[in-house]
Amino acid sequence: MKKYNIAVVGATGAVGRTLLRLLVKEDFPISELTLLASARSAGRRIEFRGENLIVEEATKDSFHDIDIAFFCAGGAISKEYAQYAVASGAVVIDNSSAYRLNPEVPLVIPEVNGDAVDNHRGIIANPNCSAIIMLMALKPLLAISPIKRVVFSTYQAVSGAGNKAVSELEQQVRGYVAGSIPEAKILPSSSDDKHFQIAFNVLPQVDVFADDYYTKEELKIIKEAHKILNDETIGITGTCVRVPVFWCHSESLNIQFERFVSRQEVRDTLMNAPGVVLYDDPDKQIYPMPLDYYDEDNVYVGRIREDHTVIGGINIWIVGNQLRKGAATNALQIARLLIDKGLLL
Amino acid sequence: MKKYNIAVVGATGAVGRTLLRLLVKEDFPISELTLLASARSAGRRIEFRGENLIVEEATKDSFHDIDIAFFCAGGAISKEYAQYAVASGAVVIDNSSAYRLNPEVPLVIPEVNGDAVDNHRGIIANPNCSAIIMLMALKPLLAISPIKRVVFSTYQAVSGAGNKAVSELEQQVRGYVAGSIPEAKILPSSSDDKHFQIAFNVLPQVDVFADDYYTKEELKIIKEAHKILNDETIGITGTCVRVPVFWCHSESLNIQFERFVSRQEVRDTLMNAPGVVLYDDPDKQIYPMPLDYYDEDNVYVGRIREDHTVIGGINIWIVGNQLRKGAATNALQIARLLIDKGLLL
Repeated sequence: MKKYNIAVVGATGAVGRTLLRLLVKEDFPISELTLLASARSAGRRIEFRGENLIVEEATKDSFHDIDIAFFCAGGAISKEYAQYAVASGAVVIDNSSAYRLNPEVPLVIPEVNGDAVDNHRGIIANPNCSAIIMLMALKPLLAISPIKRVVFSTYQAVSGAGNKAVSELEQQVRGYVAGSIPEAKILPSSSDDKHFQIAFNVLPQVDVFADDYYTKEELKIIKEAHKILNDETIGITGTCVRVPVFWCHSESLNIQFERFVSRQEVRDTLMNAPGVVLYDDPDKQIYPMPLDYYDEDNVYVGRIREDHTVIGGINIWIVGNQLRKGAATNALQIARLLIDKGLLL
Repeated sequence: MKKYNIAVVGATGAVGRTLLRLLVKEDFPISELTLLASARSAGRRIEFRGENLIVEEATKDSFHDIDIAFFCAGGAISKEYAQYAVASGAVVIDNSSAYRLNPEVPLVIPEVNGDAVDNHRGIIANPNCSAIIMLMALKPLLAISPIKRVVFSTYQAVSGAGNKAVSELEQQVRGYVAGSIPEAKILPSSSDDKHFQIAFNVLPQVDVFADDYYTKEELKIIKEAHKILNDETIGITGTCVRVPVFWCHSESLNIQFERFVSRQEVRDTLMNAPGVVLYDDPDKQIYPMPLDYYDEDNVYVGRIREDHTVIGGINIWIVGNQLRKGAATNALQIARLLIDKGLLL
């Protein structure tokens, strides 16, 4: 089997580490692995398949002979270096938001719009984690009936704000038990002015505020969903909220189909949807919870109910691992899709 | 000033304790205070205004000379003893769900439908905590335009499931730090079969499951809102979720008015609504968070945004103290209203 030269930019971050774990776990066909990061993180050592790899500083010249470059280091690094990776002949799978809404860049969830990779020009964008998790459930449901409108409320894990946010929750809880909670420095967004305690709290701000009093996260979900579904007529609105959970995002969705849709139709459809697990048996208190999916790639759906306040109303509850299907797993699936389709440069 | 003989049934529970604190804090005109509970809790001592009061076992004969009996001990106790309290000449303010949907019993939020107390027959029901918090914001907004539909997603504190659930979160967090999390025994509902960890988790089940795959809590919000607003034409649907927060409930609401309503109209209206605090300035990261309202009676509203996916769409975020305005404060306000209106028996 052919093997590939892989670069991971941002190897020390939350998504980068998860990606490295998955490359091992799934026995990805790697010839050489190059770990890259900003100057700040360069020099660190990371164990990979028993070897101690040194993280190198990313430069223009880091991408010679690289086949696939995973960018997991934030938008600024992607904007600076993705072009050099492409010029060197690599395909970039970019986990940042830098290129997601660029009309020349495919924004891809393999189970949802895998064919969008066909026309790539060197960069493929990995969608926002909350958007991926939502669309894994919504896309199969579109086979039942067109959807008029979706109202979402999210319950997002701290991992979505990176390793430092994960540590922040951990330290706050340890501080609480010890009698003194350390000052918040990261959440809701490290780039914003004020920071608030996440332990024993929920923060109705994910990412910074943007247009029309929505946060960037809320607008990402809406705009990315429209692009991925290639349909801007579906009304999508909602509120993003950070909760004191480590790894998995949950979402409460109210969906309005164009016609009456029964609970059973939704169940039958999701039961056969790739990457989705129907986990829905109220009689046995079976529904998805974020604590249960630390080591999971699938998206779980439960609490499926008809909402009779509108024609075609359905309420559902979905949970997915933010770092896995919400980030690293999806990126790796894109890489495999490129290989399968012979679309590497 | 006239003083009243007060009984508190369920004085040792989460709501009962909060009520006792408020009776002191607000210097309620008490002549004699009788503390009652089930046989299980009788005999405990509770300090009140420097005195050590003994909790007595509630019996048929506990209510002689009582003017106002606050029932805070759950539906079974209310169903058993409220009748005797009324027969003894007391007015019962019942915090349980036992009588809430009884057409002969007023279900009252003083700022929303205070006049409903006028025709009471001895029992007045205190609404569900999530319903109170939601309606404190919705009722004033009805002055702008009729509302067609509301979609709610809740972020509910453990205090709503009682003192034992508060301890459960506390013990799980302490266990986590110490290296071993004790088994869940209370949440999502002490009366249900399975129990799940709440620390670092969210549970999409509040109370037990009921009709049509909705939980009782979800149906309470819907049915109680219809009764309190005296309008069953407003479509209300949503999902109730428990989060690892101690005291305050948060709710994400998507509201659909009958006509276009601007963000400014919503702000102007809520700024003048009694018991509501507008806390909404995204530029300064000002929005309500449950950690901030441990000692608060008001309901806070923020994240007000127009939702252009429907005509008349508005998203808001509301937070209220579950034990205060969601329970004890509202009960006490009902008592004051009865006194002001001369409606004690």
